[in-house]
Amino acid sequence: MIGQPVIFRAAQRADLPAIVRMLADDDLGSMRERCEDPLPPAYYSAFEQIDRDSNHELIVAEQNGEVIGTLHLMFLPSVSFQGGLRAQVESVRVDKRVQSQGIGSAMMKWTMERARQRGAHVIQLTTHKTRLDAHRFYERLGFKGSHLGMKLSLK
Amino acid sequence: MIGQPVIFRAAQRADLPAIVRMLADDDLGSMRERCEDPLPPAYYSAFEQIDRDSNHELIVAEQNGEVIGTLHLMFLPSVSFQGGLRAQVESVRVDKRVQSQGIGSAMMKWTMERARQRGAHVIQLTTHKTRLDAHRFYERLGFKGSHLGMKLSLK
Repeated sequence: MIGQPVIFRAAQRADLPAIVRMLADDDLGSMRERCEDPLPPAYYSAFEQIDRDSNHELIVAEQNGEVIGTLHLMFLPSVSFQGGLRAQVESVRVDKRVQSQGIGSAMMKWTMERARQRGAHVIQLTTHKTRLDAHRFYERLGFKGSHLGMKLSLK
Repeated sequence: MIGQPVIFRAAQRADLPAIVRMLADDDLGSMRERCEDPLPPAYYSAFEQIDRDSNHELIVAEQNGEVIGTLHLMFLPSVSFQGGLRAQVESVRVDKRVQSQGIGSAMMKWTMERARQRGAHVIQLTTHKTRLDAHRFYERLGFKGSHLGMKLSLK
């Protein structure tokens, strides 16, 4: 499949199994997803909330008719930075079968262009401290690891 | 003012000058805000976007009729974590005149309760690596600094 064009588009409901499969397909994700057939209904409810909110864009990368990557781009209005709009990226995944072919990088460049189009002044994301390859990947794209990302589980 | 009750409520348009003053009142904030009278209109446009979106709650803490703290709580639908809702906190500030009286802690505890009520499974935030006091403050509340927060400026 190397060399086939990759297109980026809004995810549809039918893409959810492929998206969840990619989210589940690593050490951290496998502990928190339920990649079953059919998927648990909570995935579909979340999809519907995302889909009807114009500040959320769940994106898939498609090559040769197959979903090979995903990310969730969101736009966050904010008072800070003079009322500046922030873009935030979550849940970035590239299918393991096509990794190291520049697809993640193409996805992020598409995202940067999209965020600029919508007038965001910054793109922010967090990655787990253990994902060292991800840190280097985002640094190569120009991201700076200036912040500590903190989480509090409510469960 | 020590000992006076602190109430938490949704920010109103008229609270914006107090909010922006607090955002601007530190080393990082002073470089990026324009705390003028009247405020630049972009602050009001951002406020209106936040105010009409039920997934965003711009909160102020009020004591003795005065705004003494602020934070921006947002709820982010997500496919990951089995379609789990995330809460995110941005732009947390306590007025310097009333710091070290437990107001920040009360604000965050209120926020944790609010996030639980709305069904979020996690609260996430980032703080600049240089804000060491903030890291300790959030750790005392149970947050874990598990992530690297990365930003890419689009300006």
